[in-house]
Amino acid sequence: MIELNFSNMMEDVIGGNGLSKSAVENFREKIEGAHKQIKDRLWPELAFLDLLFQDTSKIKKIARYIRKTSENFLLLGIGGSALGPKAVLEALSPFHNLQKKPRVFIYDNVDPRTLKHILSLADLKSTSVNVISKSGSTAETAASFLILWEKMEKVLGKEASKKFVITTDPEKGNLRRIIQEEGLLSLPIPSGVGGRYSVLSPVGLLLAEVIGIKSDELLDGAKEIHNRCTRPDIWKNPAYLFGTFLYLMEREKQRTINVMVPYADSLKPLSEWFCQLWAESLGKENKGLTPYPSLGTTDQHSQLQLWIEGPQDKVLVFIRVNDYGLDIKMPAVFKDVEGLNYLSGHTLSELIKAEEEATELALAKAKRPNMAITIPKIDAYHMGQLLHFFEIATAFTGFLYEINPFNQPGVEEGKNLTYGMMGKKGFEEKRREVEAHRKKRGKWKV
Amino acid sequence: MIELNFSNMMEDVIGGNGLSKSAVENFREKIEGAHKQIKDRLWPELAFLDLLFQDTSKIKKIARYIRKTSENFLLLGIGGSALGPKAVLEALSPFHNLQKKPRVFIYDNVDPRTLKHILSLADLKSTSVNVISKSGSTAETAASFLILWEKMEKVLGKEASKKFVITTDPEKGNLRRIIQEEGLLSLPIPSGVGGRYSVLSPVGLLLAEVIGIKSDELLDGAKEIHNRCTRPDIWKNPAYLFGTFLYLMEREKQRTINVMVPYADSLKPLSEWFCQLWAESLGKENKGLTPYPSLGTTDQHSQLQLWIEGPQDKVLVFIRVNDYGLDIKMPAVFKDVEGLNYLSGHTLSELIKAEEEATELALAKAKRPNMAITIPKIDAYHMGQLLHFFEIATAFTGFLYEINPFNQPGVEEGKNLTYGMMGKKGFEEKRREVEAHRKKRGKWKV
Repeated sequence: MIELNFSNMMEDVIGGNGLSKSAVENFREKIEGAHKQIKDRLWPELAFLDLLFQDTSKIKKIARYIRKTSENFLLLGIGGSALGPKAVLEALSPFHNLQKKPRVFIYDNVDPRTLKHILSLADLKSTSVNVISKSGSTAETAASFLILWEKMEKVLGKEASKKFVITTDPEKGNLRRIIQEEGLLSLPIPSGVGGRYSVLSPVGLLLAEVIGIKSDELLDGAKEIHNRCTRPDIWKNPAYLFGTFLYLMEREKQRTINVMVPYADSLKPLSEWFCQLWAESLGKENKGLTPYPSLGTTDQHSQLQLWIEGPQDKVLVFIRVNDYGLDIKMPAVFKDVEGLNYLSGHTLSELIKAEEEATELALAKAKRPNMAITIPKIDAYHMGQLLHFFEIATAFTGFLYEINPFNQPGVEEGKNLTYGMMGKKGFEEKRREVEAHRKKRGKWKV
Repeated sequence: MIELNFSNMMEDVIGGNGLSKSAVENFREKIEGAHKQIKDRLWPELAFLDLLFQDTSKIKKIARYIRKTSENFLLLGIGGSALGPKAVLEALSPFHNLQKKPRVFIYDNVDPRTLKHILSLADLKSTSVNVISKSGSTAETAASFLILWEKMEKVLGKEASKKFVITTDPEKGNLRRIIQEEGLLSLPIPSGVGGRYSVLSPVGLLLAEVIGIKSDELLDGAKEIHNRCTRPDIWKNPAYLFGTFLYLMEREKQRTINVMVPYADSLKPLSEWFCQLWAESLGKENKGLTPYPSLGTTDQHSQLQLWIEGPQDKVLVFIRVNDYGLDIKMPAVFKDVEGLNYLSGHTLSELIKAEEEATELALAKAKRPNMAITIPKIDAYHMGQLLHFFEIATAFTGFLYEINPFNQPGVEEGKNLTYGMMGKKGFEEKRREVEAHRKKRGKWKV
């Protein structure tokens, strides 16, 4: 069971930079309003809450088939379609490709160098391809899908189509149409569920099962925390507290940057997943918080200086791990070297935990607010908890801001300009706009 | 030769959110002052400028020996000692461990799970270990060094000591003492050069040579740009312009976040390297800019919404690549699916470049300032240019802020508290402080 400790956010611990219990109480009405939207499912996009009770039998069946027939699993997707699977892969099977089969390649860009490398590493004869796009029209995913479709056909002939699994909207879109026309394997992303809230749908669960992680454990963890995170009493609800504190720190203390610092290498992709969720959900109408992906202890030697002595614009969120599951002791060598010998006899997990605690306290002493989420250990059950916790917290915080936490209107213009340049019908005007801008752009350069 | 285009920072392009030529001219005196500090080498730490002319013969000799004797190269270091090598590795040899020898493991944390994985993957009998710490007393690096020292000895006996290469201060510190006592191979980080400015010292160059990259090409690239980046005329100096614009955007427009967005997967570690350099150098005295590591096109589906419609607190810096060196064409499949067929016939590099240009323009249209650095291609020569360019820009910007861009006083307290908890002599008081704080911390949690 995860724990949220927010002592270092409170004014009785860090003084005037902190918040008081009554500052939170004063927001009771707003908090109740946000809670009501969740409780009464006032948005169809809250369908992500119901993923916990999905039938996973088809996911498991397809995963078994992939495991039996494939040496490589290639996932084509971007944004929410890739970040969730990446977070699951790295947390639950670190260094996967150096030690396990099927190897996993997640191609979430259109960088030709990366795809060439993947194609030279993965024998397509024994590769399954999972194409993930909710809308079915994501340009980057479409691009790599076209390429893989042709290359797989070249290698496997008619058998190629059996090696594709398409994860998309259950009814609409280009990919759904192709599934029907070509008779492809497919998995649904339920209509209400948006890309960035989809990790506990087939988007993340198929990858989990393919690498040998039980999707039921992810869902069980999420279920365990679900009731805690939808309780009306804020002081008993970690997700609402998390959101409310970060919201108040921005509104009342101008702290606009939320740094996510797990103390485990394998949770770094989790912070990147969180950053998409938080940024794209809340960043609109000139509002929003900037989530920052970080990593302890590593970034103590990169970002800590800025956190502790830079501008007063950040809140730090640490993720502590109670039990790393294994440990390594520092031996008594170089006994007479004082700068090193104090470490002998201690273990790495003692050291990493001491550093986390020291960093929290050093920040608190400098009156810099921070919170800590503690997880008992890194396994599927607790990953499920973290993922569901952050999703609820994000939707809730969107409701505090009185914005729609499920759309992303700001990315349309860039897509349209790209369509223009790529010659898509109906976007000729956009192409001309780019060309006009190129001329303007010639003046200021060195 | 890299190019800096700052059109989308200018008011004649983006209106009132932009800067004018005269705004920059008004700062002439400050800029000249900063330039003088660089030209006259007023800080001993500017020694990084002279790395370009170092003798690399010992680095090459050691690298040849490692390549001949090792299947694995394990680098122990953190912060500047790891981020530079990582940036070089990923940019110049992507997917290295799946296709080349010696495999490279960079352990820049004290996460026991990560080290266990590395130890299970790398046969220590054929492993060389490069320990990197300027001061010789970095706790994280010391911890893994102790562990590896004992484990290597167990496997190799007396031969073990021949497999260590220590990169540290040429005269001082625990590691230098151990080099002497044990007769270890070593490479110097010149006294003035700080960790985060050390990538073009043996810190980054040994790794480069070990993976088959010519260190001379990195240095040649840096030399090529050196004169351009130390010119007094700001309008001809890309490093000074880069720093001045980001400085002015913060001072005059309250834009405190600088997002670094290379459009190439393999340059993501470069943005993380830049973020350490920028954050730790400039974040002090309640001042500083928050650098943000990002990646195109991927983060268009993660952060772009926030960049374009969130708070007016960011400047975006794109890194464009002219020639990806190879390409892949999108074939004419699914010809009747309109949502996909516009891509057919185009290549991935056309698409990635179109997306970069579209994103710049979409931001400019929304009056959000951004700059672009263009590099001809991703190779050692141009990596050398980028690295040196950013280092000069960072020192210069520190001088504009009138702070010391070479120290990091803010990280000391966290270190001392860690020493206290790990039982280092003289830090007993710090341990008591942590224990007292634990009690305080008990109150606010859920």
